[in-house]
Amino acid sequence: MAQQQTTCLPNPPAVLSFANAGGKYEGDGPLAAWFDWLETDPFFGEPSFEKAESALQQYALRKALEKAGLQDTDLDCVFGGDLLNQCIGTGYAMRNFSVPFYGLYGACSTMGESLSLAALLISAGYLTCAAALTSSHFCSAERQYRMPLPYGSQRCPTAQWTATAAGCTILTAGGGDAQGPYITHVTRGRVVDKGITDANNMGAAMAPAALDSLLAFFRDTGASPGDFDRIITGDLGKLGSQILVDLAGRAGLDIASKHSDCGLLLYDLDRQDMHCGGSGCGCSAAVLNGYLLTALRQGEFRRILFAPTGALLSPTATFQGESIPGICHVLCIAKDKE
Amino acid sequence: MAQQQTTCLPNPPAVLSFANAGGKYEGDGPLAAWFDWLETDPFFGEPSFEKAESALQQYALRKALEKAGLQDTDLDCVFGGDLLNQCIGTGYAMRNFSVPFYGLYGACSTMGESLSLAALLISAGYLTCAAALTSSHFCSAERQYRMPLPYGSQRCPTAQWTATAAGCTILTAGGGDAQGPYITHVTRGRVVDKGITDANNMGAAMAPAALDSLLAFFRDTGASPGDFDRIITGDLGKLGSQILVDLAGRAGLDIASKHSDCGLLLYDLDRQDMHCGGSGCGCSAAVLNGYLLTALRQGEFRRILFAPTGALLSPTATFQGESIPGICHVLCIAKDKE
Repeated sequence: MAQQQTTCLPNPPAVLSFANAGGKYEGDGPLAAWFDWLETDPFFGEPSFEKAESALQQYALRKALEKAGLQDTDLDCVFGGDLLNQCIGTGYAMRNFSVPFYGLYGACSTMGESLSLAALLISAGYLTCAAALTSSHFCSAERQYRMPLPYGSQRCPTAQWTATAAGCTILTAGGGDAQGPYITHVTRGRVVDKGITDANNMGAAMAPAALDSLLAFFRDTGASPGDFDRIITGDLGKLGSQILVDLAGRAGLDIASKHSDCGLLLYDLDRQDMHCGGSGCGCSAAVLNGYLLTALRQGEFRRILFAPTGALLSPTATFQGESIPGICHVLCIAKDKE
Repeated sequence: MAQQQTTCLPNPPAVLSFANAGGKYEGDGPLAAWFDWLETDPFFGEPSFEKAESALQQYALRKALEKAGLQDTDLDCVFGGDLLNQCIGTGYAMRNFSVPFYGLYGACSTMGESLSLAALLISAGYLTCAAALTSSHFCSAERQYRMPLPYGSQRCPTAQWTATAAGCTILTAGGGDAQGPYITHVTRGRVVDKGITDANNMGAAMAPAALDSLLAFFRDTGASPGDFDRIITGDLGKLGSQILVDLAGRAGLDIASKHSDCGLLLYDLDRQDMHCGGSGCGCSAAVLNGYLLTALRQGEFRRILFAPTGALLSPTATFQGESIPGICHVLCIAKDKE
């Protein structure tokens, strides 16, 4: 029997509220209207880029709590993480809230991982209300993963642009004021490494992981791409998206007409110079916790697959000649409880 | 009503198997007899310290699978993480296994976090068999967090020694060959930061988080320290342990006669020059997945609290003048299902 990677949630948790925040380029992009806060100062009033990222996360959590009419002590748990070494964006954000916390590292898949774990534990009845939270910041990521910003290094065409953004979803056991949408299925991803060593081509490195998890979802559930309004990865970018659609086709899975990618939705690549598109934990987090969940709530979408991907590399691993392991966690999010 | 941080697991998952590995100093310590593999080569046959740490994790997972008579594809999920930037010890280990993976970052609390999440999802019936996995390596941690090893920097008296070790627990829904022990309760920790800024005194930084979670456990369950054979933190070291026992006493919780710390159990501080004791994700992981689980299986202990603590700092945060947030996750582990 094939390994089961998907859980069909017996008690689909409801989205109680959601919030996001972004920076200058996110505000110039096509999804600007779906942000709660857009700020042109990359420091967000803080003395460093890392503290700015932590402030973004705190805003997203506070705003989501405010929209839900909750205090921090009403939450049973926060699941969160980010791209910074030792996940300090999240760790330092969470010291300002009185909430139990499970820290995650899933690179750019973190919004999927955090939402999956929160949904599983709420469906099980172990938590009543929990938040999934993540962020990224172009400036903190650039100096940590690539070069100091003042060098003005030239970016290569396959490079993606780390979003300066954060997003938070608050899930609840349902009932009461919860309007949904609902998390109905989660698929746990495996680590897939096909030998890509170019850290400036992460879409190519992550596409096989996205395929692996999407195939697992369709195998485990018996669903087909036609059952969904959209299949939205995050963040393969332009090249990685083409690779995924191509690889999926060869595996007998036609997703060409259904596929979108958060890295392509967040920016207008014809007008904004983001090369292959957006990336970073905050990219899929901001797209989900603005445009996508709104579209589901308003009935524009009835059912989507949300499939954030992560590249589990580090600069140290790259310097040691390593290839790039990828991972992808898939969630089925539906307007109605079904 | 006080915030509930503890889940009493309705279906306590059983420990199916466990394994650990360590380096030269762990082999010189008092727990040497409880290791599956002790190796004096700090490279463990690999070309870098980071790859050595990843090899240690792979060994721990393979050995635990072997003891359980399982293949990797028999596992429903691995929960794991480590101290390295972007958790590459775990990410690169997991690409060699065909198992769904949730990556965690809880610093030295990761063994508690991974075991908690695995236990919760098994008790819920969503997973049948899952592994909790973590590691640390003195040499990879030292050059990442402190100084290049060839500098021979002098360590200050409050410093702790990052264990070169890994540990893995495989949990199952019970029945069949599972001998236990069993995970009966998990308490989710909050982030606590009391303003300690000395990154060479992490025991002091983490002790208040340990107290916060232990108080939550006793408040939520109505249990008292007398109900346990041991209350074992990891890794507060010598000074942090004294601070915890003192703070607990002032809060009306007398744990003096019950408290041990993995950082004090792993080395003989009179004979080994580890200053304040052991630390690192691998420290509590190796102590649990050798000495502690064996003692529970053999009936030397009937019930323990396992409370690994983590310091959620990074060198970047410290350079920016930040204090050190701590976290602690508590598990009640019992010989019998109760």
